[in-house]
Amino acid sequence: MSAHTGRSSAVTVVGLGPMGRALAAAFLAAGVPTTVWNRTPGRDADLVAAGARAAASAGEAVAASPLTVVCVVNYDASDAVLREEAVTAALKGRTLVNLSADTPGRARDTAEWAARHGVRYLDGAIMTPAPTIGTDDAVFLHSGPEELYEEHRPVLAALGGTHTHLGEDPGRAAAYDIALLDIFWTAMAGYVHALALARAEGVTGAELAPFAQGIAAILPPLFTEFAADTDAGTYSGAINPITSAVSTMTHVVHAAEAQGIDASLMRVIEGQARRVVARGHGSDGYSRVADVITGR
Amino acid sequence: MSAHTGRSSAVTVVGLGPMGRALAAAFLAAGVPTTVWNRTPGRDADLVAAGARAAASAGEAVAASPLTVVCVVNYDASDAVLREEAVTAALKGRTLVNLSADTPGRARDTAEWAARHGVRYLDGAIMTPAPTIGTDDAVFLHSGPEELYEEHRPVLAALGGTHTHLGEDPGRAAAYDIALLDIFWTAMAGYVHALALARAEGVTGAELAPFAQGIAAILPPLFTEFAADTDAGTYSGAINPITSAVSTMTHVVHAAEAQGIDASLMRVIEGQARRVVARGHGSDGYSRVADVITGR
Repeated sequence: MSAHTGRSSAVTVVGLGPMGRALAAAFLAAGVPTTVWNRTPGRDADLVAAGARAAASAGEAVAASPLTVVCVVNYDASDAVLREEAVTAALKGRTLVNLSADTPGRARDTAEWAARHGVRYLDGAIMTPAPTIGTDDAVFLHSGPEELYEEHRPVLAALGGTHTHLGEDPGRAAAYDIALLDIFWTAMAGYVHALALARAEGVTGAELAPFAQGIAAILPPLFTEFAADTDAGTYSGAINPITSAVSTMTHVVHAAEAQGIDASLMRVIEGQARRVVARGHGSDGYSRVADVITGR
Repeated sequence: MSAHTGRSSAVTVVGLGPMGRALAAAFLAAGVPTTVWNRTPGRDADLVAAGARAAASAGEAVAASPLTVVCVVNYDASDAVLREEAVTAALKGRTLVNLSADTPGRARDTAEWAARHGVRYLDGAIMTPAPTIGTDDAVFLHSGPEELYEEHRPVLAALGGTHTHLGEDPGRAAAYDIALLDIFWTAMAGYVHALALARAEGVTGAELAPFAQGIAAILPPLFTEFAADTDAGTYSGAINPITSAVSTMTHVVHAAEAQGIDASLMRVIEGQARRVVARGHGSDGYSRVADVITGR
């Protein structure tokens, strides 16, 4: 057993991709004794030079610290490490924080597995890119037993940024993560489509970008308004009824297809909005789409 | 002929929906002699009370002013008014500014029609909702002959806000408009989907919204970066290769479908990204999708 064992602030980091390496580096920079392991060897040289202990196996790695933070590509990858018999046995009575990304269902499944094996389990999500780790800009979401979160909060604080405990349901951090990634990638898909459409019309990205930033600036108050609409089930269309939104969406589809650009994304959006109109809700606001896609 | 004719600042507004009414009210508030007309009667009472002249026909309306601003639902609707023989004849030698929304193709077609009939033509787009008209928040885009734009700029300034002339191609204002609507509605579609997904996971809109606003806040610098990528054809994936984006998109699809929520939007987005990977560009950035959807 390592000399680190028993020091409540010692940590093991499993997974040394760009994010795992950033996590380990932040722990080391904060003076937390850190053990590291990665399935593919050779990723730990810089970290070891900075004071990390390199474990020879995943079992040895998790046994070295009261707290293990795992950050791999998804839960298939974390299962492949953690559900190995020797590793599961070594985790018994210790705390595992899984910061890998996956679905709420996988997070809950891992929490059940952990409970069955006496592993104290917190699930989490990292909302910001690797370069933010250790800085004020990092954003971490956590879910699982609050007491356990409070116990490890001091060492997790070494990662910098903002940490929010979202509740006891272990799937909650993943639910927020997935919802926010949904917003992010859909918005980026719309932007890249707009860049392609603008290019076909002889408008450069540099010309469009300042106006696109004007669009980004109007989103936050609309996000608040649509959230309230969805929570209340009101869907007010007084300012912008979905019938007028549909007409706009059709223009985008026609303009894209006239240029030979794939408009399947806007066709889906237009189709969902038209279903709202077809159900007799044409004077409602666009947020009514939330019901249509949920099958309500 | 009206007493207004010959006064270079007099204006006619055709179309008295919420936006047309806001335009007419702003002209009146700025002291510009204003004639109004709408296909469906009875929309002009407030405007007449505020000093507008009500025309008995579209032909009479456009004959009343050297400048006509038309703002109806789309170019089918503006054609139905403007291409009537008496109206076209009355417009000859006068200026027409079409602020209705439609595609760049329809804008160019209308410019050609105007040229054939001796109508001086500017195309435009209004990027902000009706309540912004007459305030600093209004955003107007214009395209067509620059000289003509400069001639009418003083009276258009009565509408408040920011006016930008984008170039001589009459389709240019519509191209920006369509691209920006593409960004807007795709982003809102992603947000409403995220609200539905969060709700299914027991997360309210009020809980999600502050984090969603964090996503909106990271978009502007990414918009600049992606615009530069697309202009240069570089598509750097150093920070976030599209292979890792695809994995995230798959999580969103699975999480939504596990809750019985339609994930067709993210399936399209995921499919476009997977096509980039399949073409051997997996280490490129997500902006490479611009080429795939353009058929490059």
